[in-house]
Formats: sequence, structure tokens, C-alpha cells
Amino acid sequence: MKKINTSPISGMQELLPGKQAIFNQLLAEITRVYHAHGFLSIETPVIDRTEILLAKAGGDTEKQIYKVVKTAETADDADQALRFDHTVPLARYVVEHESDLKFPFKVTQIGRNFRGERAQKGRFREFYQCDIDVIGRNKLPLGYDADVVATAYEALKTFVKPEILVRVSNRKILGGLLETLGLAEKSDVIFGIIDHAEKVPLEKTHAAYEEEGLNAEQIKTLEDFVEIRGTLEEVMPKLEEIFAHVGGETLREGIDELSFVLGNLEAQGLKGKVIADMLIIRGLDYYTGSVFETIIPEYKEIGSICSGGRYENLAGYYTDQQLPGVGISIGLTRLFYVLNEYGLLDDTERKVVDYCICPISENEYAFAAKVAAELRAEGNTVDVIYAGKSVGDKLKYAAAVATKGIVIGESEVESGKYEIKEFA
Amino acid sequence: MKKINTSPISGMQELLPGKQAIFNQLLAEITRVYHAHGFLSIETPVIDRTEILLAKAGGDTEKQIYKVVKTAETADDADQALRFDHTVPLARYVVEHESDLKFPFKVTQIGRNFRGERAQKGRFREFYQCDIDVIGRNKLPLGYDADVVATAYEALKTFVKPEILVRVSNRKILGGLLETLGLAEKSDVIFGIIDHAEKVPLEKTHAAYEEEGLNAEQIKTLEDFVEIRGTLEEVMPKLEEIFAHVGGETLREGIDELSFVLGNLEAQGLKGKVIADMLIIRGLDYYTGSVFETIIPEYKEIGSICSGGRYENLAGYYTDQQLPGVGISIGLTRLFYVLNEYGLLDDTERKVVDYCICPISENEYAFAAKVAAELRAEGNTVDVIYAGKSVGDKLKYAAAVATKGIVIGESEVESGKYEIKEFA
Repeated sequence: MKKINTSPISGMQELLPGKQAIFNQLLAEITRVYHAHGFLSIETPVIDRTEILLAKAGGDTEKQIYKVVKTAETADDADQALRFDHTVPLARYVVEHESDLKFPFKVTQIGRNFRGERAQKGRFREFYQCDIDVIGRNKLPLGYDADVVATAYEALKTFVKPEILVRVSNRKILGGLLETLGLAEKSDVIFGIIDHAEKVPLEKTHAAYEEEGLNAEQIKTLEDFVEIRGTLEEVMPKLEEIFAHVGGETLREGIDELSFVLGNLEAQGLKGKVIADMLIIRGLDYYTGSVFETIIPEYKEIGSICSGGRYENLAGYYTDQQLPGVGISIGLTRLFYVLNEYGLLDDTERKVVDYCICPISENEYAFAAKVAAELRAEGNTVDVIYAGKSVGDKLKYAAAVATKGIVIGESEVESGKYEIKEFA
Repeated sequence: MKKINTSPISGMQELLPGKQAIFNQLLAEITRVYHAHGFLSIETPVIDRTEILLAKAGGDTEKQIYKVVKTAETADDADQALRFDHTVPLARYVVEHESDLKFPFKVTQIGRNFRGERAQKGRFREFYQCDIDVIGRNKLPLGYDADVVATAYEALKTFVKPEILVRVSNRKILGGLLETLGLAEKSDVIFGIIDHAEKVPLEKTHAAYEEEGLNAEQIKTLEDFVEIRGTLEEVMPKLEEIFAHVGGETLREGIDELSFVLGNLEAQGLKGKVIADMLIIRGLDYYTGSVFETIIPEYKEIGSICSGGRYENLAGYYTDQQLPGVGISIGLTRLFYVLNEYGLLDDTERKVVDYCICPISENEYAFAAKVAAELRAEGNTVDVIYAGKSVGDKLKYAAAVATKGIVIGESEVESGKYEIKEFA
């Protein structure tokens, strides 16, 4: 009988061993692909200075950060909290170790982050994020924007079975458009409206524009603009038409950058799998150029499973050195949760143990250990069952945990030979 | 120029990518060996209920635990803290998921734990522990005591190059001896004295016994007792002599258990690598039978690199169900730190990138991506450098990060052929 509540705190992932093995397999696949593309692993501490973590934060982040209470023996330290993403500690890491790193610095961080959000189904307070970033010194070529997208796409394809679609845009396009429409001052609000547009009915977005005092022509321009999506050859004529109409340097830059990134990705065989989409904004984030979101079109309701973008300056709060970067992140805990809910995981609960050896009595332990060592040397996973009163008990355990069983009794020890029993 | 302090908080491990790759390799080797021996991976949340974490704690643990401040949106939750080891969350996990687990439950947990200790060289506040445990229901055969030791020994041997020595004892032996010497009431103190004996001069231990009021004969018995160490055939006559002299049921059990565990390990080829050693106590821990510590004899000053033992009841604070277990743990962050300090790591900073492809201009990006994909399909890790003004710049980066370089210019695109440049 339980004496106290032993469930994990709400919002924390806790899996049974069979599901954990699948989760770990996904982590391993993502890591393998990231490494194959030349990204180097680093790990930053889970606990960091609050001053660092909140240097540029505000809003939700500040409300959701988990502060850590110093102990008697750490009382002299700076105020501390748990990291809520990988980007902020990465900024600190790059500034701290700058002289020891090669630039462009291609880096991957895979681990748990923490946000004390309201508990709700499918949302996690402790969650794995699988990030890649490329950090430049002073400048960073656009080739890397395509690089991170192509890498993340390949990683996702190792385990997401339905089609996936990466939607790419460039914030300079909408930014430039708003400048020329004389709406630069309202750009934060309008970015926010468009960022939400997919989640609300059209009329509501229309009403929101009107509330901000936009005139009918401005609204028409924006409503037409966010309809632009497709391959390079589909979207470029429409974007060039807008440019011909309104002009402007920022808009030009945005169109050229998008054209370069999308063209590069299509040349890599991702035409139609990565598309331009003017609805993509990445909310109030700190992105300044390319932005990416990824959906499973068959299951749009899942939302973005992998997103990112380019930032002009990674660590402006910590250093005067200009460090532009581009990054993308797979939110694996949430993605695993929804794939599991939708039955999209390959969860034929694989037995991870190949052989279970069943010595009948203590007299056979030594020979059982020898057989186990030989099988392990061939690359098998091998358990030896020491519990169970009868051979039947032992075989029942063996069949539950392993795909094959080996009974070791007196005659096996004598002959040095044994039979392998395949379990159904 | 740095604007604020960007060093990690004192006591946190933060590695450069080259060292991180070695650290990750050790984690992977340990995981591989643990899985090969049939241990299943689980992960518990880093944040857990304080009530759970501190159910049986006291002393240092209570002083060193990092409490977590609830956020506005988690205010209704129970009080929370960071886990300080893997055993306590494992106890909660086993009770919570008991009906879904197979027993004996062979489990591994590898991850970071947290203790807010005073900062000092070589001590960490965030540290990886690599645990294996076997949990039984009502009882657990002694074969598993040998199983965890043999598994941890094999894992350590994958990366610790000098000889290692596992020292094994059984707390029932000293416990039984103290009973028959009429010292049962002082057993906590005497366990403590012997646990510290290796770290202080002989006279100090002697004086400590005298301070506790032990008479000369009792002291002599204990001083002779802790000298007993060696292989099964070396120690058994000495232990049997003590038993013949003082007798007692607990002592008998302890000797028999030790004999079984050590005999099993010697039969597995670990004779002389795993020895009995009556100095091994595992301090004030919750162990009730077998206890293990591991040293590198050439570097005794490092102390124990892997330790554990058997506990009669894993989760007595959470359930009435009797759950005996045996476990062992490698403290990898500290071990990595000392191996590195002593120059015992295989740290020929391996380049983890096999090929770096250098397209001369944007016109070659698509072909570069094609070559990269082909090389990756053969299992290579491949970076493509988009930065750098000249081919010289690109090759300099390539030589720094990769073992081979490939320059892609117009003629390579035309011919479809390219040369591979090996870097020294």
C-alpha cells in the first residue's frame, strides 16, 4: 500500500522502460544526424545565474522561470535559476569560451529545459529540446540558414512517418512591407496579429487590423500578402510584384535572402518539402531574418514541431562582440507525446534484451556468466536471471524481458553445450 | 568586450567541444555495457516533491538540497526540489509504476544530480551519476549483488586504463561482530570510525576507540579485523576463525553472503580484481548487506570511483511493500575530472568531423550538398563551410575541424569528380 503520493509532479515526463527505450532511440537518431552534419555537442549547466538567464527576457519567461534557492554552503553565489532554453546559456558559453572556439561555430545542445507553466495536457514543464545553431563572428553567410533547416528535416524524417512540411519566411519581408505602408510604428502589433492569424477566424484578424486603425487598402495588402506560399517559382513572382509596387531596401533584402535560402534547399532535393510561407512570423521572438516552422500537414492541429530562425546578435547583453547566428530546435518531449497520442510512433515495444540465461541452480552460475560474456562479446544484450524458484518461473521472466532464452543445468555445464529457445 | 560575468556558477562542469566529445563517449560506453547486461533505462524528472526527496534524508542531504521556487502558474503544486541522487526518485518510480514493471527490475539511470555543497576543486554541484540497480519484490537473490559489481567493473574497464580494484564487504559481518562484542549500541559510531580509518593515522583511530570506552581486547579485535583483505581463499580462514571465536547468527549470515558474492565474481574471472576488504563500510548509508567501493590502486588518493551496496528495503517510506535492492553507481563527472587531471584520459582530441567540403562560390553549393549527402550516407560526418572569403580561409577552417577536406569549384561541378585532401 502506498503511504504517500508517488506520482511525478504534473507536467513532467516519466515513461515506462519500453517507451523510454523508444524515446532514447529518437534522441540517438537526432544526435546522429546532427553530428553527421558537423554540429559539435556541448552541455551547459542546468543551473545558471539569474542575471544571465533573464538579461533579455520579459513577459512569460520571467513569470515561468524556476528560481533555485541557494543552500547554506552556496549562499555566497549569485542568484540562480534553471535554464528555460538552450539559446541563452549558449550565448553565455560562446562569450566565455570565444577564444577556444572555431567560427562559424556549429553546435548542438540536447537536454532538458524548464518552464513553470500552468499544467495542461501535452504541455511540459521539464522538456527535451534538441537544438542546432551556427554562430558567426561579425557575419554569418546565408548558407547556414539552409544548413540548419536541411539538418533538422533529415533528423525529423528518421522517425516522423507522415509527410512533414517546413515553412520558411524572412522577417525583413513583412518588416519592409510595413515600413513602406507607413506602419513601421505598429509593426510589433501587426507581427503579433499575423502570428496568431492561423489560430483565429479570418474576421477576427480583419477586426484586429481595423482596431489598429489600418485602412481598407492596407488591410487588403496584408491579407493578400499572407496568402503567399509555395515553392520558389510560385512565390517569387508575387513577392516581386509587391516589391515593384512598394519598393524599399529592407523588403528587397528580405526577398533576396528568402530566395537564396529556399533556392539552396530546393537544390538539395527539398522542393515542396520546404516552402515559403508569408504567414510564418515566429511571434515576438528575437529573430531578425529567416524564420522556420515545421508542421505535419495531416495533423495540423499538432502545431509546429520544429522551429527557429536567424538572430542578428546572439549575445548583445553580454559582450560588445557581434555574434550573428541561426538556429533551429526540435521540442522532443512534446513531439514524442503527440506522436504517441496519435499512434504515430513505431512502438512495437521492442524487447531490448536479446538473451536471458536461466541457470537452474547456483552450481550453474559460473557457466551462465561465461555464456553471457561470450554472447555479449558478439554484441548481444544478455540478462541472467538469478531469481525464481523453478525453471518455469525463470522462463516466464525470460520470455517477458528477452527474445531468446537459454536454460543452463548440470548437463549443459558438463557438455559445454546449450540450446537457444526463441520466444514468440 | 564582456559586459557581465559569463563564467558558469562554481561547481558546474562546462567543457569545450573536444572534451565534451570524450565525456559523451564515456557516457555512451557505460550505457552500452549496462544495456548489454540487461539493465533497462529510465529517467525520472529532475524536479520532484520535497516530501519525496527528503522522506528519509537528514544531515548533509537536507542542507545541500536545492529547493525550487514555484512560479505563479505552478503555485498550487507541492513543494519542489532538485533530485540529489537517483535512488530516491527510483524508489518513488518503482512504487508508482509497480504493476507495470517486471521483477527483478533491472534498471539503469544516467543523468545529472544536484547538491549545493561548498565549492572546492574536483567537487561538483551538478554531476552525472551512472547507476544500475536491481529491485526485487519481497526478496532478491544474492546473484544480483555480483551482477551489479561485474557490470560496473566491465563498464569502468572500457575507459579507465590503469588497474582498478573493487573492494567488497558485507555490513552484517562487522554488525555481527559488534553484537557479540557487546558493542551493538555503539555500532553507528564504530561504523563511522572504521569508515574514516583510511583517511587518518592509525593512532587517531585507536584514540577514537578509546574515547568510546572500548577495552584493549575489543580494540585489538577490531584492529585485526579491518586488516582482513584479499581473495576468497585468503580471507575465509580468517573470517571463520573469528566466527569460531565469537559466533553469532548475523556474523554467520554476513560471512556466507560475502563468500557467495565474492565466489561468484571470482568464478567470472575477476579473482584479484574484486577482493574482500573489511575496511569497506559505506559510512552512514542505508546499506544492509553487501557494500562495494572501487579504487585505482596506482592513484589511491582519488578515492572511490564507483560504489554501492544492498539495501533491505528501497521504499519503506512510500509503501508497505517490501522492495529489497542492490545497486552501484559511477560518479562520472568527478571521475572524468580526475582522469583528466591525472592525464589518464584518451584525449587525443579526436576530430569528430570526417570531411569538410569547401564550395568556392555559391554556384557550387548545390553540388557540395550532394557530395555531403553521399558521404553521410556512407556513415561519415560531413561539414560544409559556407563562410570564408578565399579558398585559403575555407581550407584553414576545414583543417581545424575535419580530418579531410574537399574543394568544390567550377571544374568539380562540371566533371562530377573531386579530390580528397588529407589533413595532417
